[in-house]
Amino acid sequence: MIYRLWYWPSIPGRGEFVRLSMEAAGIPYEDSAREQGVSAMIADMGSRKRRGPFAPPYLVLPDDRAIAQTGNILLYLGDTHGLAPADPADRLWVHQVQLTVADMIAEVHQAHHPCGVGAYYEQQKSEAARFAAEFRAQRMPKYLGWFEKTLGEDEWIGGATWSYADCSLFQLIEGLRYMFPDRMMALEPLIPALVALHDRVAALPGIAAYGESKRRTPFNEDGIFRHYPELDGTE
Amino acid sequence: MIYRLWYWPSIPGRGEFVRLSMEAAGIPYEDSAREQGVSAMIADMGSRKRRGPFAPPYLVLPDDRAIAQTGNILLYLGDTHGLAPADPADRLWVHQVQLTVADMIAEVHQAHHPCGVGAYYEQQKSEAARFAAEFRAQRMPKYLGWFEKTLGEDEWIGGATWSYADCSLFQLIEGLRYMFPDRMMALEPLIPALVALHDRVAALPGIAAYGESKRRTPFNEDGIFRHYPELDGTE
Repeated sequence: MIYRLWYWPSIPGRGEFVRLSMEAAGIPYEDSAREQGVSAMIADMGSRKRRGPFAPPYLVLPDDRAIAQTGNILLYLGDTHGLAPADPADRLWVHQVQLTVADMIAEVHQAHHPCGVGAYYEQQKSEAARFAAEFRAQRMPKYLGWFEKTLGEDEWIGGATWSYADCSLFQLIEGLRYMFPDRMMALEPLIPALVALHDRVAALPGIAAYGESKRRTPFNEDGIFRHYPELDGTE
Repeated sequence: MIYRLWYWPSIPGRGEFVRLSMEAAGIPYEDSAREQGVSAMIADMGSRKRRGPFAPPYLVLPDDRAIAQTGNILLYLGDTHGLAPADPADRLWVHQVQLTVADMIAEVHQAHHPCGVGAYYEQQKSEAARFAAEFRAQRMPKYLGWFEKTLGEDEWIGGATWSYADCSLFQLIEGLRYMFPDRMMALEPLIPALVALHDRVAALPGIAAYGESKRRTPFNEDGIFRHYPELDGTE
Protein backbone atom coordinates (compact mmCIF):
# COMPACT_ATOMS: atom_id res chain seq x y z
CA MET A 1 0.00 0.00 0.00
CA ILE A 2 1.55 3.25 -1.13
CA TYR A 3 0.26 6.51 0.26
CA ARG A 4 0.62 9.81 -1.48
CA LEU A 5 1.41 12.66 0.91
CA TRP A 6 0.83 16.11 -0.54
CA TYR A 7 2.53 19.05 1.14
CA TRP A 8 4.52 22.15 0.21
CA PRO A 9 7.85 20.65 -0.87
CA SER A 10 10.28 23.30 0.38
CA ILE A 11 9.40 23.47 4.08
CA PRO A 12 9.03 20.95 6.91
CA GLY A 13 5.87 22.68 8.15
CA ARG A 14 2.87 20.66 9.25
CA GLY A 15 3.63 17.96 6.69
CA GLU A 16 6.72 16.98 8.64
CA PHE A 17 4.58 15.74 11.53
CA VAL A 18 3.00 13.24 9.15
CA ARG A 19 6.32 12.28 7.55
CA LEU A 20 7.96 11.61 10.90
CA SER A 21 5.37 9.09 12.05
CA MET A 22 5.44 7.31 8.69
CA GLU A 23 9.23 7.24 8.70
CA ALA A 24 9.34 5.97 12.28
CA ALA A 25 6.97 3.14 11.36
CA GLY A 26 8.54 2.40 7.99
CA ILE A 27 5.30 3.08 6.11
CA PRO A 28 6.00 3.57 2.40
CA TYR A 29 4.74 6.83 0.92
CA GLU A 30 5.32 9.09 -2.03
CA ASP A 31 6.11 12.69 -1.11
CA SER A 32 4.02 13.74 -4.05
CA ALA A 33 4.65 17.47 -4.40
CA ARG A 34 8.39 16.76 -4.27
CA GLU A 35 8.00 14.14 -6.98
CA GLN A 36 5.46 15.92 -9.13
CA GLY A 37 5.74 19.60 -8.23
CA VAL A 38 3.53 22.18 -6.57
CA SER A 39 1.44 22.71 -9.69
CA ALA A 40 0.45 19.05 -9.56
CA MET A 41 -0.61 19.52 -5.93
CA ILE A 42 -2.73 22.56 -6.81
CA ALA A 43 -4.28 20.57 -9.65
CA ASP A 44 -4.96 17.59 -7.39
CA MET A 45 -6.63 19.81 -4.78
CA GLY A 46 -8.71 21.55 -7.42
CA SER A 47 -9.84 18.26 -8.92
CA ARG A 48 -11.45 17.15 -5.65
CA LYS A 49 -14.99 18.43 -5.83
CA ARG A 50 -16.12 17.01 -2.51
CA ARG A 51 -14.26 16.16 0.66
CA GLY A 52 -11.06 17.72 -0.56
CA PRO A 53 -8.61 19.31 1.88
CA PHE A 54 -8.90 22.89 3.09
CA ALA A 55 -5.10 23.03 2.91
CA PRO A 56 -2.09 20.70 2.75
CA PRO A 57 -0.94 18.41 4.23
CA TYR A 58 -3.26 15.70 3.04
CA LEU A 59 -2.82 12.00 2.54
CA VAL A 60 -4.29 10.17 -0.44
CA LEU A 61 -5.18 6.52 0.05
CA PRO A 62 -4.93 3.93 -2.74
CA ASP A 63 -8.68 4.31 -3.34
CA ASP A 64 -8.03 8.05 -3.93
CA ARG A 65 -9.74 9.17 -0.75
CA ALA A 66 -8.03 12.24 0.72
CA ILE A 67 -7.56 12.74 4.45
CA ALA A 68 -6.54 16.19 5.67
CA GLN A 69 -5.75 17.98 8.93
CA THR A 70 -2.49 16.86 10.52
CA GLY A 71 -4.11 15.52 13.68
CA ASN A 72 -6.74 13.68 11.66
CA ILE A 73 -4.17 12.11 9.33
CA LEU A 74 -2.24 10.91 12.37
CA LEU A 75 -5.43 9.57 13.94
CA TYR A 76 -5.99 7.53 10.78
CA LEU A 77 -2.40 6.30 10.60
CA GLY A 78 -2.41 5.56 14.30
CA ASP A 79 -5.45 3.31 14.02
CA THR A 80 -4.45 1.72 10.73
CA HIS A 81 -0.80 1.02 11.44
CA GLY A 82 -0.65 0.74 15.21
CA LEU A 83 1.00 4.12 15.77
CA ALA A 84 -1.33 4.76 18.68
CA PRO A 85 -2.24 2.63 21.69
CA ALA A 86 -5.04 0.11 21.22
CA ASP A 87 -6.59 0.97 24.56
CA PRO A 88 -9.39 3.49 23.87
CA ALA A 89 -8.50 5.78 26.76
CA ASP A 90 -4.80 5.83 25.84
CA ARG A 91 -5.67 6.33 22.18
CA LEU A 92 -7.82 9.37 22.96
CA TRP A 93 -5.15 10.75 25.27
CA VAL A 94 -2.55 10.54 22.50
CA HIS A 95 -4.90 12.49 20.24
CA GLN A 96 -5.40 15.08 22.97
CA VAL A 97 -1.63 15.58 23.19
CA GLN A 98 -1.42 15.87 19.39
CA LEU A 99 -4.10 18.57 19.31
CA THR A 100 -2.30 20.44 22.08
CA VAL A 101 0.90 20.30 20.01
CA ALA A 102 -1.14 21.73 17.13
CA ASP A 103 -2.35 24.59 19.32
CA MET A 104 1.21 25.44 20.30
CA ILE A 105 2.32 25.33 16.67
CA ALA A 106 -0.45 27.77 15.72
CA GLU A 107 0.99 30.17 18.28
CA VAL A 108 4.48 29.61 16.89
CA HIS A 109 3.12 30.70 13.52
CA GLN A 110 1.44 33.71 15.08
CA ALA A 111 4.83 34.71 16.55
CA HIS A 112 6.03 35.67 13.06
CA HIS A 113 2.65 36.44 11.46
CA PRO A 114 0.57 38.26 14.08
CA CYS A 115 -1.17 40.76 11.80
CA GLY A 116 -1.62 38.90 8.54
CA VAL A 117 -1.46 35.31 7.36
CA GLY A 118 -0.76 36.38 3.78
CA ALA A 119 1.55 39.31 4.54
CA TYR A 120 5.33 39.03 4.89
CA TYR A 121 7.10 38.88 8.22
CA GLU A 122 8.96 42.05 7.22
CA GLN A 123 5.62 43.87 7.20
CA GLN A 124 4.88 42.97 10.84
CA LYS A 125 8.23 42.74 12.63
CA SER A 126 7.51 44.98 15.61
CA GLU A 127 4.14 43.30 16.19
CA ALA A 128 5.83 39.90 15.93
CA ALA A 129 8.34 40.98 18.56
CA ARG A 130 5.49 41.82 20.93
CA PHE A 131 3.82 38.45 20.46
CA ALA A 132 7.12 36.58 20.65
CA ALA A 133 8.05 38.24 23.95
CA GLU A 134 4.83 37.00 25.56
CA PHE A 135 5.19 33.62 23.86
CA ARG A 136 8.69 33.11 25.27
CA ALA A 137 7.85 34.37 28.75
CA GLN A 138 4.38 32.91 29.28
CA ARG A 139 3.31 30.43 26.65
CA MET A 140 6.47 28.34 26.19
CA PRO A 141 6.79 27.53 29.91
CA LYS A 142 3.06 26.84 30.11
CA TYR A 143 2.93 24.45 27.15
CA LEU A 144 6.27 22.76 27.76
CA GLY A 145 5.58 22.52 31.48
CA TRP A 146 2.28 20.80 30.74
CA PHE A 147 3.93 18.25 28.45
CA GLU A 148 6.61 17.66 31.08
CA LYS A 149 4.12 17.20 33.91
CA THR A 150 1.92 14.90 31.94
CA LEU A 151 4.83 12.77 30.77
CA GLY A 152 6.01 12.27 34.34
CA GLU A 153 8.29 9.28 34.61
CA ASP A 154 6.89 7.50 31.59
CA GLU A 155 9.07 6.65 28.63
CA TRP A 156 6.39 7.52 26.08
CA ILE A 157 3.46 9.88 26.18
CA GLY A 158 0.64 7.41 25.74
CA GLY A 159 1.62 3.87 26.54
CA ALA A 160 4.25 1.17 26.55
CA THR A 161 5.69 2.11 23.16
CA TRP A 162 6.02 5.18 20.98
CA SER A 163 3.00 6.76 19.27
CA TYR A 164 2.55 9.49 16.69
CA ALA A 165 2.30 12.06 19.48
CA ASP A 166 5.83 11.16 20.62
CA CYS A 167 7.10 11.86 17.10
CA SER A 168 5.24 15.17 17.15
CA LEU A 169 6.75 16.15 20.48
CA PHE A 170 10.19 15.36 19.03
CA GLN A 171 9.54 17.71 16.11
CA LEU A 172 8.15 20.37 18.42
CA ILE A 173 11.38 20.37 20.45
CA GLU A 174 13.46 20.36 17.26
CA GLY A 175 11.53 23.33 15.90
CA LEU A 176 11.62 25.33 19.11
CA ARG A 177 15.37 24.77 19.37
CA TYR A 178 15.75 26.11 15.84
CA MET A 179 13.48 29.12 16.36
CA PHE A 180 14.31 30.03 19.96
CA PRO A 181 17.79 28.63 20.73
CA ASP A 182 18.48 31.03 23.61
CA ARG A 183 15.09 30.55 25.17
CA MET A 184 15.28 26.78 24.88
CA MET A 185 18.75 26.76 26.43
CA ALA A 186 17.20 28.45 29.46
CA LEU A 187 14.08 26.26 29.56
CA GLU A 188 15.43 22.80 28.86
CA PRO A 189 16.77 22.20 32.38
CA LEU A 190 13.15 22.54 33.52
CA ILE A 191 11.83 19.88 31.14
CA PRO A 192 14.20 16.91 31.48
CA ALA A 193 11.57 14.24 30.80
CA LEU A 194 10.52 15.95 27.57
CA VAL A 195 14.13 16.28 26.43
CA ALA A 196 14.70 12.61 27.21
CA LEU A 197 11.59 11.73 25.20
CA HIS A 198 12.97 13.78 22.30
CA ASP A 199 16.20 11.80 22.48
CA ARG A 200 14.38 8.47 22.57
CA VAL A 201 12.43 9.39 19.43
CA ALA A 202 15.63 10.55 17.72
CA ALA A 203 17.11 7.12 18.40
CA LEU A 204 14.24 5.15 16.84
CA PRO A 205 15.75 3.38 13.83
CA GLY A 206 13.26 4.87 11.37
CA ILE A 207 13.78 8.40 12.67
CA ALA A 208 17.59 8.06 12.81
CA ALA A 209 17.69 6.83 9.21
CA TYR A 210 15.31 9.57 8.11
CA GLY A 211 17.41 12.25 9.81
CA GLU A 212 20.43 11.18 7.80
CA SER A 213 18.52 11.08 4.53
CA LYS A 214 17.86 13.84 2.04
CA ARG A 215 14.15 13.38 2.67
CA ARG A 216 14.43 15.26 5.96
CA THR A 217 13.97 18.95 5.16
CA PRO A 218 15.95 21.43 7.25
CA PHE A 219 14.05 24.20 8.96
CA ASN A 220 14.04 27.47 7.04
CA GLU A 221 12.47 30.92 7.07
CA ASP A 222 9.54 29.98 4.87
CA GLY A 223 8.18 27.39 7.29
CA ILE A 224 6.44 27.46 10.65
CA PHE A 225 9.56 27.39 12.82
CA ARG A 226 11.73 30.31 11.66
CA HIS A 227 14.93 31.53 13.19
CA TYR A 228 14.68 35.28 13.43
CA PRO A 229 17.27 36.20 16.10
CA GLU A 230 15.29 39.30 17.05
CA LEU A 231 12.40 37.10 18.22
CA ASP A 232 14.57 35.01 20.53
CA GLY A 233 15.84 35.81 24.01
CA THR A 234 16.77 34.07 27.23
CA GLU A 235 13.48 35.07 28.85
CA MET B 1 -24.31 8.51 33.16
CA ILE B 2 -23.70 12.12 34.09
CA TYR B 3 -20.77 13.96 32.58
CA ARG B 4 -19.14 16.94 34.17
CA LEU B 5 -18.20 19.62 31.64
CA TRP B 6 -15.72 22.16 32.94
CA TYR B 7 -15.44 25.47 31.10
CA TRP B 8 -15.30 29.19 31.86
CA PRO B 9 -18.85 29.94 32.97
CA SER B 10 -19.33 33.45 31.56
CA ILE B 11 -18.58 32.90 27.86
CA PRO B 12 -19.76 30.50 25.17
CA GLY B 13 -16.20 30.05 23.89
CA ARG B 14 -14.92 26.63 22.94
CA GLY B 15 -17.05 24.96 25.58
CA GLU B 16 -20.18 25.86 23.65
CA PHE B 17 -19.18 23.48 20.86
CA VAL B 18 -19.30 20.64 23.36
CA ARG B 19 -22.54 21.84 24.96
CA LEU B 20 -24.31 22.08 21.61
CA SER B 21 -23.66 18.49 20.62
CA MET B 22 -24.70 17.22 24.04
CA GLU B 23 -27.84 19.34 24.00
CA ALA B 24 -28.70 18.21 20.46
CA ALA B 25 -28.37 14.59 21.55
CA GLY B 26 -30.03 15.03 24.92
CA ILE B 27 -26.96 13.82 26.81
CA PRO B 28 -27.21 14.76 30.50
CA TYR B 29 -24.29 16.78 31.85
CA GLU B 30 -23.41 19.08 34.68
CA ASP B 31 -22.00 22.43 33.60
CA SER B 32 -19.65 22.22 36.50
CA ALA B 33 -18.02 25.65 36.67
CA ARG B 34 -21.48 27.22 36.53
CA GLU B 35 -22.64 24.98 39.36
CA GLN B 36 -19.50 25.06 41.47
CA GLY B 37 -17.62 28.20 40.39
CA VAL B 38 -14.35 28.96 38.65
CA SER B 39 -12.29 28.32 41.77
CA ALA B 40 -13.59 24.74 41.82
CA MET B 41 -12.51 24.37 38.18
CA ILE B 42 -9.03 25.67 38.95
CA ALA B 43 -8.83 23.29 41.90
CA ASP B 44 -10.02 20.36 39.79
CA MET B 45 -7.43 21.10 37.09
CA GLY B 46 -4.69 21.45 39.69
CA SER B 47 -5.62 18.17 41.35
CA ARG B 48 -5.01 16.21 38.15
CA LYS B 49 -1.37 15.23 38.32
CA ARG B 50 -1.30 13.26 35.07
CA ARG B 51 -3.38 13.48 31.94
CA GLY B 52 -5.08 16.65 33.04
CA PRO B 53 -6.19 19.26 30.51
CA PHE B 54 -3.92 21.96 29.16
CA ALA B 55 -6.94 24.26 29.27
CA PRO B 56 -10.74 24.10 29.49
CA PRO B 57 -13.03 22.81 28.09
CA TYR B 58 -12.67 19.32 29.44
CA LEU B 59 -15.15 16.57 30.10
CA VAL B 60 -14.93 14.37 33.18
CA LEU B 61 -16.33 10.87 32.87
CA PRO B 62 -17.98 9.02 35.76
CA ASP B 63 -14.68 7.18 36.38
CA ASP B 64 -13.05 10.65 36.82
CA ARG B 65 -11.06 10.43 33.61
CA ALA B 66 -10.70 13.86 31.98
CA ILE B 67 -10.87 14.38 28.21
CA ALA B 68 -9.74 17.73 26.83
CA GLN B 69 -9.40 19.51 23.50
CA THR B 70 -12.74 20.38 21.91
CA GLY B 71 -12.23 18.20 18.83
CA ASN B 72 -11.10 15.30 20.96
CA ILE B 73 -14.08 15.59 23.33
CA LEU B 74 -16.39 15.57 20.32
CA LEU B 75 -14.57 12.59 18.85
CA TYR B 76 -15.24 10.73 22.10
CA LEU B 77 -18.89 11.80 22.30
CA GLY B 78 -19.35 11.01 18.63
CA ASP B 79 -18.15 7.46 19.06
CA THR B 80 -19.84 6.87 22.40
CA HIS B 81 -23.25 8.37 21.68
CA GLY B 82 -23.60 8.05 17.92
CA LEU B 83 -23.00 11.74 17.19
CA ALA B 84 -20.77 10.80 14.27
CA PRO B 85 -21.27 8.40 11.37
CA ALA B 86 -20.45 4.75 12.00
CA ASP B 87 -18.69 4.41 8.63
CA PRO B 88 -14.95 4.89 9.28
CA ALA B 89 -14.41 7.17 6.27
CA ASP B 90 -17.39 9.37 7.13
CA ARG B 91 -16.35 9.44 10.76
CA LEU B 92 -12.85 10.64 9.88
CA TRP B 93 -14.27 13.20 7.48
CA VAL B 94 -16.49 14.65 10.22
CA HIS B 95 -13.42 14.99 12.43
CA GLN B 96 -11.54 16.71 9.58
CA VAL B 97 -14.35 19.26 9.30
CA GLN B 98 -14.31 19.78 13.07
CA LEU B 99 -10.55 20.45 13.08
CA THR B 100 -10.99 22.90 10.21
CA VAL B 101 -13.67 24.72 12.23
CA ALA B 102 -11.12 24.82 15.07
CA ASP B 103 -8.52 26.38 12.77
CA MET B 104 -10.95 29.07 11.70
CA ILE B 105 -11.87 29.78 15.32
CA ALA B 106 -8.19 30.22 16.20
CA GLU B 107 -8.01 32.91 13.51
CA VAL B 108 -11.19 34.52 14.87
CA HIS B 109 -9.40 34.76 18.21
CA GLN B 110 -6.30 36.20 16.53
CA ALA B 111 -8.54 38.89 14.98
CA HIS B 112 -8.91 40.54 18.39
CA HIS B 113 -5.70 39.28 20.01
CA PRO B 114 -2.99 39.47 17.33
CA CYS B 115 -0.09 40.61 19.53
CA GLY B 116 -0.74 38.97 22.87
CA VAL B 117 -2.92 36.18 24.22
CA GLY B 118 -2.83 37.61 27.73
CA ALA B 119 -3.04 41.31 26.82
CA TYR B 120 -6.29 43.22 26.42
CA TYR B 121 -7.91 43.99 23.08
CA GLU B 122 -7.59 47.68 23.90
CA GLN B 123 -3.81 47.25 23.90
CA GLN B 124 -3.78 45.94 20.32
CA LYS B 125 -6.67 47.60 18.51
CA SER B 126 -4.83 48.87 15.45
CA GLU B 127 -3.05 45.53 14.95
CA ALA B 128 -6.37 43.74 15.36
CA ALA B 129 -7.86 45.95 12.65
CA ARG B 130 -5.08 44.90 10.29
CA PHE B 131 -5.62 41.21 10.91
CA ALA B 132 -9.42 41.55 10.76
CA ALA B 133 -9.27 43.29 7.39
CA GLU B 134 -7.38 40.37 5.88
CA PHE B 135 -9.57 37.89 7.72
CA ARG B 136 -12.75 39.43 6.30
CA ALA B 137 -11.39 39.81 2.78
CA GLN B 138 -9.40 36.61 2.37
CA ARG B 139 -9.91 34.08 5.10
CA MET B 140 -13.68 34.22 5.61
CA PRO B 141 -14.47 33.57 1.93
CA LYS B 142 -11.82 30.85 1.81
CA TYR B 143 -13.04 28.97 4.88
CA LEU B 144 -16.76 29.48 4.30
CA GLY B 145 -16.39 28.72 0.61
CA TRP B 146 -14.68 25.46 1.47
CA PHE B 147 -17.44 24.41 3.86
CA GLU B 148 -20.02 25.35 1.20
CA LYS B 149 -18.29 23.41 -1.56
CA THR B 150 -17.77 20.37 0.54
CA LEU B 151 -21.37 20.34 1.76
CA GLY B 152 -22.68 20.44 -1.80
CA GLU B 153 -26.27 19.32 -1.97
CA ASP B 154 -26.10 17.17 1.14
CA GLU B 155 -28.32 17.86 4.09
CA TRP B 156 -25.62 17.15 6.65
CA ILE B 157 -21.84 17.41 6.50
CA GLY B 158 -20.95 13.77 7.07
CA GLY B 159 -23.79 11.40 6.41
CA ALA B 160 -27.51 10.74 6.49
CA THR B 161 -28.08 12.47 9.81
CA TRP B 162 -26.56 15.26 11.87
CA SER B 163 -23.16 14.89 13.53
CA TYR B 164 -21.18 16.98 15.99
CA ALA B 165 -19.56 18.82 13.10
CA ASP B 166 -22.96 20.07 11.95
CA CYS B 167 -23.55 21.51 15.41
CA SER B 168 -20.12 23.14 15.26
CA LEU B 169 -20.84 24.68 11.85
CA PHE B 170 -24.08 26.06 13.29
CA GLN B 171 -22.16 27.74 16.12
CA LEU B 172 -19.53 29.01 13.70
CA ILE B 173 -22.20 30.78 11.64
CA GLU B 174 -23.85 32.10 14.80
CA GLY B 175 -20.56 33.47 16.05
CA LEU B 176 -19.52 35.03 12.76
CA ARG B 177 -22.92 36.73 12.46
CA TYR B 178 -22.41 38.19 15.92
CA MET B 179 -18.84 39.32 15.30
CA PHE B 180 -19.05 40.37 11.66
CA PRO B 181 -22.71 41.21 10.89
CA ASP B 182 -21.93 43.43 7.92
CA ARG B 183 -19.46 41.02 6.41
CA MET B 184 -21.77 38.05 6.88
CA MET B 185 -24.64 39.97 5.28
CA ALA B 186 -22.45 40.32 2.20
CA LEU B 187 -21.15 36.74 2.24
CA GLU B 188 -24.24 34.72 3.08
CA PRO B 189 -25.73 34.85 -0.44
CA LEU B 190 -22.59 33.00 -1.55
CA ILE B 191 -23.02 30.18 0.98
CA PRO B 192 -26.68 29.10 0.73
CA ALA B 193 -26.04 25.44 1.58
CA LEU B 194 -24.15 26.36 4.74
CA VAL B 195 -26.90 28.76 5.82
CA ALA B 196 -29.49 26.04 5.19
CA LEU B 197 -27.41 23.63 7.28
CA HIS B 198 -27.32 26.22 10.07
CA ASP B 199 -31.12 26.46 9.93
CA ARG B 200 -31.52 22.68 10.02
CA VAL B 201 -29.36 22.46 13.13
CA ALA B 202 -31.28 25.34 14.73
CA ALA B 203 -34.48 23.35 14.21
CA LEU B 204 -33.24 20.16 15.88
CA PRO B 205 -35.45 19.71 18.95
CA GLY B 206 -32.52 19.60 21.36
CA ILE B 207 -30.95 22.74 19.91
CA ALA B 208 -34.24 24.63 19.73
CA ALA B 209 -34.99 23.85 23.37
CA TYR B 210 -31.44 24.76 24.39
CA GLY B 211 -31.65 28.08 22.53
CA GLU B 212 -34.70 29.05 24.54
CA SER B 213 -33.16 28.01 27.85
CA LYS B 214 -31.01 29.98 30.24
CA ARG B 215 -28.23 27.45 29.66
CA ARG B 216 -27.43 28.99 26.26
CA THR B 217 -24.92 31.79 26.93
CA PRO B 218 -25.15 34.87 24.70
CA PHE B 219 -22.00 35.95 22.90
CA ASN B 220 -20.11 38.71 24.66
CA GLU B 221 -16.84 40.64 24.50
CA ASP B 222 -14.95 38.26 26.79
CA GLY B 223 -15.33 35.27 24.49
CA ILE B 224 -13.93 34.17 21.16
CA PHE B 225 -16.57 35.81 18.96
CA ARG B 226 -16.64 39.49 19.97
CA HIS B 227 -18.59 42.25 18.34
CA TYR B 228 -16.25 45.18 17.93
CA PRO B 229 -17.87 47.28 15.19
CA GLU B 230 -14.48 48.63 14.12
CA LEU B 231 -13.39 45.12 13.10
CA ASP B 232 -16.41 44.55 10.86
CA GLY B 233 -17.03 45.80 7.31
CA THR B 234 -18.84 44.78 4.17
CA GLU B 235 -15.61 43.64 2.53
